[in-house]
Amino acid sequence: MSSHVDQIFHDHRGGKLQTGLRRPLETAADLSIAYTPGVAKVCQAIAEDASLAATYTWTSHLVAVVTDGSAVLGLGNIGPKAAMPVMEGKAALFKRFGGLDAVPICLGTTDPDEIVAAVTAIAPSFGGINLEDISAPRCFDIERRLDEALDIPVFHDDQHGTAIVVLAALRNALELTGQDIEDLKIVIVGAGAAGIAVAKMLHSAGARGLIVCDSKGIIHPGRADLTPIKTEIAGMTNLDEVSGDVGVALTDANVLIGVSGARVDEDAVARMAPEAIVFALANPTPEIDPDVAAKYARVVATGRSDMPNQINNVLAFPGIFRGALDAGAESITEAMALAAADAIADCVGDKLTEDFIVPSPLDPQVSLAVARAVRHAAETAAGSAADTSVTG
Amino acid sequence: MSSHVDQIFHDHRGGKLQTGLRRPLETAADLSIAYTPGVAKVCQAIAEDASLAATYTWTSHLVAVVTDGSAVLGLGNIGPKAAMPVMEGKAALFKRFGGLDAVPICLGTTDPDEIVAAVTAIAPSFGGINLEDISAPRCFDIERRLDEALDIPVFHDDQHGTAIVVLAALRNALELTGQDIEDLKIVIVGAGAAGIAVAKMLHSAGARGLIVCDSKGIIHPGRADLTPIKTEIAGMTNLDEVSGDVGVALTDANVLIGVSGARVDEDAVARMAPEAIVFALANPTPEIDPDVAAKYARVVATGRSDMPNQINNVLAFPGIFRGALDAGAESITEAMALAAADAIADCVGDKLTEDFIVPSPLDPQVSLAVARAVRHAAETAAGSAADTSVTG
Repeated sequence: MSSHVDQIFHDHRGGKLQTGLRRPLETAADLSIAYTPGVAKVCQAIAEDASLAATYTWTSHLVAVVTDGSAVLGLGNIGPKAAMPVMEGKAALFKRFGGLDAVPICLGTTDPDEIVAAVTAIAPSFGGINLEDISAPRCFDIERRLDEALDIPVFHDDQHGTAIVVLAALRNALELTGQDIEDLKIVIVGAGAAGIAVAKMLHSAGARGLIVCDSKGIIHPGRADLTPIKTEIAGMTNLDEVSGDVGVALTDANVLIGVSGARVDEDAVARMAPEAIVFALANPTPEIDPDVAAKYARVVATGRSDMPNQINNVLAFPGIFRGALDAGAESITEAMALAAADAIADCVGDKLTEDFIVPSPLDPQVSLAVARAVRHAAETAAGSAADTSVTG
Repeated sequence: MSSHVDQIFHDHRGGKLQTGLRRPLETAADLSIAYTPGVAKVCQAIAEDASLAATYTWTSHLVAVVTDGSAVLGLGNIGPKAAMPVMEGKAALFKRFGGLDAVPICLGTTDPDEIVAAVTAIAPSFGGINLEDISAPRCFDIERRLDEALDIPVFHDDQHGTAIVVLAALRNALELTGQDIEDLKIVIVGAGAAGIAVAKMLHSAGARGLIVCDSKGIIHPGRADLTPIKTEIAGMTNLDEVSGDVGVALTDANVLIGVSGARVDEDAVARMAPEAIVFALANPTPEIDPDVAAKYARVVATGRSDMPNQINNVLAFPGIFRGALDAGAESITEAMALAAADAIADCVGDKLTEDFIVPSPLDPQVSLAVARAVRHAAETAAGSAADTSVTG
C-alpha cells in the first residue's frame, strides 16, 4: 500500500463522525434539566404544540443522509456497511459547510417499499432527508413517494445536487460565450439519476434543445425499451425526434454534459459547434480526456478535484438544506433549486474565466450565499406556481 | 412560569445534541481523504471484508436510542416528536457516561411489525439498539423479534436497565440485613416492562419467593385475564399460587419493589417482615412515602434524585453498551446483565449504609466498572450455557 492509501485508512479509524453535547452535563442539576424530571416539561409542551419540536429539539437542524448502498460512487451495489464511509463523509460535509448536524442511515434493504416505509417511520427524528447513492430508476419513485408522504424536505443529491451545480456552471460558461440557454443544442450523455435530473433542471431553466442519450443512444419516443422516466424525458427533449448514437447527437451541439461514465470519442466532440462547452463529469475517468476536449471546446469542466472547474455537489447540498430548514420548508422546490444555481454561479463574480466557472468547494461563502438564496426562494415562492417540488 | 422551568426551556433551545467531526476537514487534501476520491478505498475494503466496518466507521461505538413515544416517562403515549427531548437526553447520557455516540430515532408508528421492520432496516448503521419508552406488552415482542433478527445488541432499558440496578441495590441491601436472596419473599408491584424484567432478573439471580402484582392483584395461574408474558410470570413466581391484593402479598414479605405508580397503603407495608426492604420507584410520586415506609423498613430506595438511594438506570446502560460493543457482542446476555449488577453493587464498597446502597449517578467510575465487567462476561460466556439473551 502506498503511504497515501495508508493515510486514508489511518484517517478513517473509528469513523469520521461523533455526537456531542451542546451543554455541560456535569452536575445533578444539569442531569435533572436535561433528563428526568425536568425534561418532562419540554415533552409536555411539545405534546400540546408539535411546532415547539423545532425550537426545543435538534431535529430542526438535523439531516438524515439515507442510502441503500446500491449505487455508491462508481463502485455500484456494495451494500449498507460498505457505503457508510461515504455517508459519514457526506454528514461531515453537511456540518462543515452547512453548519447542520447530519446522521448517516444506511439501510439493509434495496426494496423500494421497505425503503419508503423505513424512512417514513424514522422521519419524525429529522428535519430533512438527503437521499444518496440509490440506483436509478428506483431512486425516482422512492424520492417522489417520500416527498409526498413527508412534511420535511426530501432531496436526492445525486439527482438535484448535480443538476443544480451543472446549471450554475453552465450559466457562467454561457456568460463567457455570450450564448443564451434557450438557443442551444445541449446533449446529455447518461440517463441515470444525474442525467435525468440535469435534463429536467435545464428544461426548467429554459433549455429547449435538449437531447439525452443512454447506453442505447439517443432517447426518442419511437424506442420500445424506455422506462417510465425515460418516456417522460422523451416527451420533453429531442423535439425533432432524432435517433442515433452519441456521435449523431453531438453533431453541431453547443454543450456536452457527460454524467454516465461511458466513453465519448474525440471524433464526436470534434463535430460540435464552435465555442463548445464540455462537462465530462464521470469520476475518476471523465467521458473524454479534458485536454483532448479542450482542442475543440472553449470551456471544459470535470468532476475531479485535481482539474479546473470541478463540478462538486458540495457547492449545493449544504446550503440548500440549510436554507430549506431555516425557512421551515416542507419540500425543495424548483424555485429553490434555481435560486441555488444562481447563487453558486454568482459566487464566481468577476473572477470568471474559462478555467474558473464555479467557485472552490472550500469557499465558505458559497453555502452561506446558497442558504440565503434558498431561504428567500422558499419564503417568497410558498404557495405560488413556482412551488413545485423538484421530485415531481 | 417559575425561573426553574424557564431554565429548563432555555437549556433545551436548539436541542441537546450535535454531530461533530473527529478530524479536521479544512483543505482539499482533507476533502479528498474523507470524501471522494479517497473514501472509495475504504468502501472497497469493507465491501470485501464486512468486519472492517467496525474499524473504519463510527458504527462500532454508535447506539440508536429508539422509541415510538408510547410510554414516555409518566406521560404515556405522547408520540415521537414529544418524546425527542427524553431521547436526546438519553443519547447525551450515553456520551457523557459511556463515551459512546448515540442518535435518537423516534418512530412515527406504534405498530410492532412496522417498528421491527424499520429498526431492522436501519440496523446496519448502528452498533447497538437501545429501545426506550415503548409500552408493554408490545415491548416484549418487539425486543425479542429484533434481538433474533439482528447481530447487534438490542436492549430495552426500561426493562433490563431497571432490573439490573434493582438487583444491584438489592444485593447491597441484603448485605446490610445479612439475608440471602433465595430465602426471601419478594413482592413486585407492577407488571409492565420494568416489573416483568425485574421478576425475571431476580429469578435469574436465585430468588424463588417472588410474587408479582398487577392492577388486578397477585398474578397466579388461575387468572383468566393473563397476557402471554404474565402467564409466563405466573409459571415462574408465586409457587404457592396465592391470590389476593397487594396487602395479601405483602404479609410477611421481606422485599417490596414498586414499579407501577400505583399507591401502596401504609397498612400493607406495616404487615411486612422485620428488616424489610422497600424500593418505591415510581416517579415523581413513589408508591409509598419513603418516610412512612422507613417506619417499617430497614432500607428504603426510590427513583428520585432528591432522596437517598436513587435507583437510576444511568448506572447501568452506558457501561452495559460500552462493554457489549467493546466485546463485539451480538446480544446482551443474562451473564452480562448479572455481571453489570454485581459491578454496580461493588462500586459502593465499604461506604455501604442504609442510605447508600447504590453509587451516585455522577460517579464516573461506575460505567467504567460496568463496562469492564460486561465485556469480561461477554468474552468468557460466549457460546456457553450462560449465553442466553435477556430478551428471551
